[in-house]
Amino acid sequence: MEKGITMTTKKMILDLDTGVDDTLAIALALGSPEVELIGITGTYGNVLLEQGVRNALALTEMFGHPEVKVYAGLPHALKRDGFEVEEISAFTHGKNGIGEIEVPEPTRQVEEQNAVDFIIEAAEKYGKDLILVPTGPQTNIAAAIEKKPEIVDMIGAEVLMGGALTQPGNVSPCSEANIHQDPAAADYVFRSGMPATMVGLDVTLQTLLTYKDTQKWRDTGTFAGQKLADITDYYIKAYETTAPHLGGCGLHDPLAVGVAIDPTLVDLLDINMMVDVDGPTYGRTIGDPDRLNDPHKTMKVAVGVDVQRFLDMFMERITKLVAQAK
Amino acid sequence: MEKGITMTTKKMILDLDTGVDDTLAIALALGSPEVELIGITGTYGNVLLEQGVRNALALTEMFGHPEVKVYAGLPHALKRDGFEVEEISAFTHGKNGIGEIEVPEPTRQVEEQNAVDFIIEAAEKYGKDLILVPTGPQTNIAAAIEKKPEIVDMIGAEVLMGGALTQPGNVSPCSEANIHQDPAAADYVFRSGMPATMVGLDVTLQTLLTYKDTQKWRDTGTFAGQKLADITDYYIKAYETTAPHLGGCGLHDPLAVGVAIDPTLVDLLDINMMVDVDGPTYGRTIGDPDRLNDPHKTMKVAVGVDVQRFLDMFMERITKLVAQAK
Repeated sequence: MEKGITMTTKKMILDLDTGVDDTLAIALALGSPEVELIGITGTYGNVLLEQGVRNALALTEMFGHPEVKVYAGLPHALKRDGFEVEEISAFTHGKNGIGEIEVPEPTRQVEEQNAVDFIIEAAEKYGKDLILVPTGPQTNIAAAIEKKPEIVDMIGAEVLMGGALTQPGNVSPCSEANIHQDPAAADYVFRSGMPATMVGLDVTLQTLLTYKDTQKWRDTGTFAGQKLADITDYYIKAYETTAPHLGGCGLHDPLAVGVAIDPTLVDLLDINMMVDVDGPTYGRTIGDPDRLNDPHKTMKVAVGVDVQRFLDMFMERITKLVAQAK
Repeated sequence: MEKGITMTTKKMILDLDTGVDDTLAIALALGSPEVELIGITGTYGNVLLEQGVRNALALTEMFGHPEVKVYAGLPHALKRDGFEVEEISAFTHGKNGIGEIEVPEPTRQVEEQNAVDFIIEAAEKYGKDLILVPTGPQTNIAAAIEKKPEIVDMIGAEVLMGGALTQPGNVSPCSEANIHQDPAAADYVFRSGMPATMVGLDVTLQTLLTYKDTQKWRDTGTFAGQKLADITDYYIKAYETTAPHLGGCGLHDPLAVGVAIDPTLVDLLDINMMVDVDGPTYGRTIGDPDRLNDPHKTMKVAVGVDVQRFLDMFMERITKLVAQAK
């Protein structure tokens, strides 16, 4: 950046259930100069809370960013007693969440402050400069709003990976996996007035990664590049079984990071959304008929994506990150 | 129109199950100089086929347009043995389809040619100048495509009222009434490659009419104005019971006519659509995951609407039509 020019760097919190595409989301955030990753808050989903937190600590170190603090969030949905990783999650991400690949144990510990309080504190500190990017169930975000409703009007934006509006779900005909983990939390956030952008299957199944792409990371010759390629190849291989027609793996979580950095990557529909929390379409993200004619729309849903522009950004930034990691 | 300037008038076929909003669609088409209503083809839905055909004949005469020919289509879904009007349809449109209001018996008869052959013949004759506007089940359109697949590439466009993409359905959580009558026909049309624009509940529940509006027709002092106001008031009254939060009746079918005349009235999403024909979300109109990444999109779905501009067009044109009728 030129001397004398000041640029406000946005502060980003990633709320992750760190599996494979969460790993790619971390890498994209760390490789993006427009944002400072001020913390990762842990949730459950692809893996148990503890595993996700451990992965986030290990991966930030592997990417050369041990300064990123990690906070543990809630271990299960507010209205449930516990959480178990589903078979399909273990198949897609590996039992350890990162494709059964070994990465060095982190040298740091999880922070003592819990994720919910960290999110609230960051909202108070950074206000409109803060972007929340949850890529799992929205349990932590809902809990933060419940504890401090004012954060809805304080923060800059929430950009979430989850849901499906114009496409079927991936765990049921109507429901996408992240929303399905805790529909009540997502519905609470969607109705809260939080300025949220939903990046769902409508667009994330259009942004696909192949072995040819991951080879570029391996070709950097670095430890991080090799490991990230191995982790991601496991995920691509799972897609060969679960969605062979796609010809690659969906870049779900990193696309949310991409949209948080540059909303022009997607076509956005202004709409007031809700989630079916107890009906026959349990977990469905859909427009709220009661607020269809409310001219004030609190949410945006990504319904189209500039695939090539995102993939170019994604590959360039992550390749540079792993090349510099060591 | 200035002398010496030639304007191609589009040829429109309305495929109607003539209830109340179908009546309004006829009025809007007849009141629009950009299109010539070359025929009405009859389908079932709000009423039985025979009742709808009778209504179309009677109403075109009442509006002062006895030149519009009416053709009978298929009486029920291709894969079903018969059709009965549902209670909610009779409640919404009246048992006679036009709000229990008496209008003079038509002096003409239905044409001998059937609707399916008429549609095919019109496609061959007018090609890209032809716009099909089905506002009931798409049984006739599907049958025409099945009989002569080439019409898909011949006609200008299909603009259909039906479905719901970003809103829940109105006969089940996922299904809109027109699609629900014959999901297989709609799915067949949607996958046929027909250049179709879906005008569904996403937008039609935003364009609302009130008693204050219909009074303007009554105020014209004409027979047609009085009758149209009475017919429409029955429909508005039904909405007070079935959807009191709206504060008016949805202008479903006429909005499809409006979009056929001026597509800029709506925000359009390019998407390849399908219909659930036998699954748990029976009758749902949704993006086809198998064609999500096909760059060639054959359909458009209206996901936003310029409400005031449509209402102004709608009121101005229909008020003028009934004022001139007699």
